[in-house]
Amino acid sequence: MTVTIAHLGPAGTNAEAAAIAFARWLDENHQPTAILRPYPSIAQTLAALAREEVSLAIVPVENSTEGSVGITLDTVWELEGLYIQQELVLPITHVLISYGSSLVDIRAVYSHPQALAQCQQWLERSLPDVELIPTNSTSEAIQDIQDDPNAAAIASPRAAQIYRAPVLVADIQDYPGNCTRFWVMGRKPGGDGSWLSLGFSVPANVPGALVKPLEVFARRNINLRRIESRPTKRSLGEYIFFLDLQGGVDRLTLQEALAELAIHTKLVKNFGSYPIIEITPP
Amino acid sequence: MTVTIAHLGPAGTNAEAAAIAFARWLDENHQPTAILRPYPSIAQTLAALAREEVSLAIVPVENSTEGSVGITLDTVWELEGLYIQQELVLPITHVLISYGSSLVDIRAVYSHPQALAQCQQWLERSLPDVELIPTNSTSEAIQDIQDDPNAAAIASPRAAQIYRAPVLVADIQDYPGNCTRFWVMGRKPGGDGSWLSLGFSVPANVPGALVKPLEVFARRNINLRRIESRPTKRSLGEYIFFLDLQGGVDRLTLQEALAELAIHTKLVKNFGSYPIIEITPP
Repeated sequence: MTVTIAHLGPAGTNAEAAAIAFARWLDENHQPTAILRPYPSIAQTLAALAREEVSLAIVPVENSTEGSVGITLDTVWELEGLYIQQELVLPITHVLISYGSSLVDIRAVYSHPQALAQCQQWLERSLPDVELIPTNSTSEAIQDIQDDPNAAAIASPRAAQIYRAPVLVADIQDYPGNCTRFWVMGRKPGGDGSWLSLGFSVPANVPGALVKPLEVFARRNINLRRIESRPTKRSLGEYIFFLDLQGGVDRLTLQEALAELAIHTKLVKNFGSYPIIEITPP
Repeated sequence: MTVTIAHLGPAGTNAEAAAIAFARWLDENHQPTAILRPYPSIAQTLAALAREEVSLAIVPVENSTEGSVGITLDTVWELEGLYIQQELVLPITHVLISYGSSLVDIRAVYSHPQALAQCQQWLERSLPDVELIPTNSTSEAIQDIQDDPNAAAIASPRAAQIYRAPVLVADIQDYPGNCTRFWVMGRKPGGDGSWLSLGFSVPANVPGALVKPLEVFARRNINLRRIESRPTKRSLGEYIFFLDLQGGVDRLTLQEALAELAIHTKLVKNFGSYPIIEITPP
C-alpha cells in the first residue's frame, strides 16, 4: 500500500526534508509507503490535496525565528475540507556555500528570503557589505552561484550534499533553537492528539470582540499555544484569527467550548486535533 | 528649519512614496521642510533613527492583503526609545511593466515578494505559466527586465514613470482596497492621537495568559484594532504580542489600564499615542 504526499519542491528544500523524515516515520510505524510529489508553491501543494491529486500535503506553518507562513494559513482557511493529521517539528540549520576560497572575496549572498532572515545577524557581522539576493528556493540559490567564486548561497547542509556544493561556514543561523513546524494535511479530521487548531473571524471594530472567544478557552483552563491574525484582504482592520490550543481536555468540555465559540464569532473552521512528531533532518 | 527622514529606498519604492506624501503633508501644515534619506533595509532605517542620524523614520507596518511586516515589529521591539508619531495609510496599486508588446510573450515576472503576493491571483489567471522571480525592490525589478522583451516587472505606476518604463497592464492588484500602513517613528512619545500601540510578552504556556491582558482593555471598553504575535526567537511557543488600541479614552482610564497590564505581563513597551493620516500617492 502506498500514500502520495505533496510538498514544496525542488530537491534540497526543508519542506522536502520534512517530507522525507515523515516518510521514514511512516515506515518505522508500519504505515503505507510514501511517494513524494514536489510542487512549485505552497498554494499549489495544498490545491493538489484539495482536488484529490494526492492523499496528504506537507506545508510549513511557522518558523521559530521568522514567525508564521502567511500563505499557508490563508490557503488552509480558503480551501474547504482540509484537516491537520500531524505536526512535524524540524530543526533548521544553515550553511554558507561558495565555490570561492575565502569569506573576504564574497560580494553577494543568494538565498530564499526566509533563510536570509534567519541568518541576518550573522550576515551583518561577518559579511556587512555584501549584496543580499532573494531566490525562490535555497536550491535555486546554489545553482545561481555555480560559476561565480565571489558569490555565496545559504542552504541546508543536506542541500549542499545533494548538489555536491562546497560548504565555507557551517551553522550560520542566528538562533541555536531554530526550527520549523510543518503540518501534514489530509481531507478527513485527523482524529486524536494533544493539539487542536482552528480559525475564526469576528465582527470588525467591536470592543472586546476577541476577548470573548479567548475567554471561552481560558475559563475551561485550555492552554493557548499560539494566536495569529491574518488580514481578510477586504479592508484594513478585518482579521481572521488562528488559534493553536492544547487538547488533552475531555471531549465534552471541548465540544461545549466550540459551541460557545460559535456564538461569539462570525465563522469558525476547525482544522482538527493532531499529535506532534519531533523529526530529525534526513 | 528642516527635519531629516529615513525611509526604505531606492527611488520608486512605496516607502519613498509614503515619505514624499508625508513631506508634502508637513509642508501643507506649516511644519519644517523634510529632507529624505533612503536606507537599504527596514532594520537600517530604524537603526539610523536610534543612533540619531535622522530625526524621523518611516517604515511599513502592515499591508491589507499580505499582513504584518515582521521585521518592522521585531526591530521596534528590540531598539530602545522609539515612538510612533503618526500613522500614514497609503493606497497601493500595481502595474505590469514590459518592454515587449504583448502578454503572450511574457516568460518571467520580476518583483518584490510582497508585490508578487499582492498580485498573485491576477498572475495565476493572466500569466499561469510564467516564472516568478523575487527581487529586493520593485525598482530593481524594473532594471532587471530592461533588455528582455520576454520579461515583465510589477511596480507602482509612479516607479514606471520615474524609470520611464512602459506599462502593459494597469491596476493588477488582487484586492481593490489594497493599502499599506506606515509608521512615522521618532525618539520621543508622539503625544496625542486616536490610536495607541504597545507590545508585551507573557509567561509561556500558562492557560489564559493572553486573556488577562486583553480583558484589561475589554473591561474598559477600549477597542482592539489589531493583535499580532511575533516569536521571541528563543524557542517555538514564546511570543511577543503587539496591540493597536483605539485611544480616545480619558488619560486616567488609560493609565489605570496600563498599570493593570503590567501585572499580567512580563515586559510592556508603550510605543505611544498617534493620529492616522490618510495620504495619496505622490
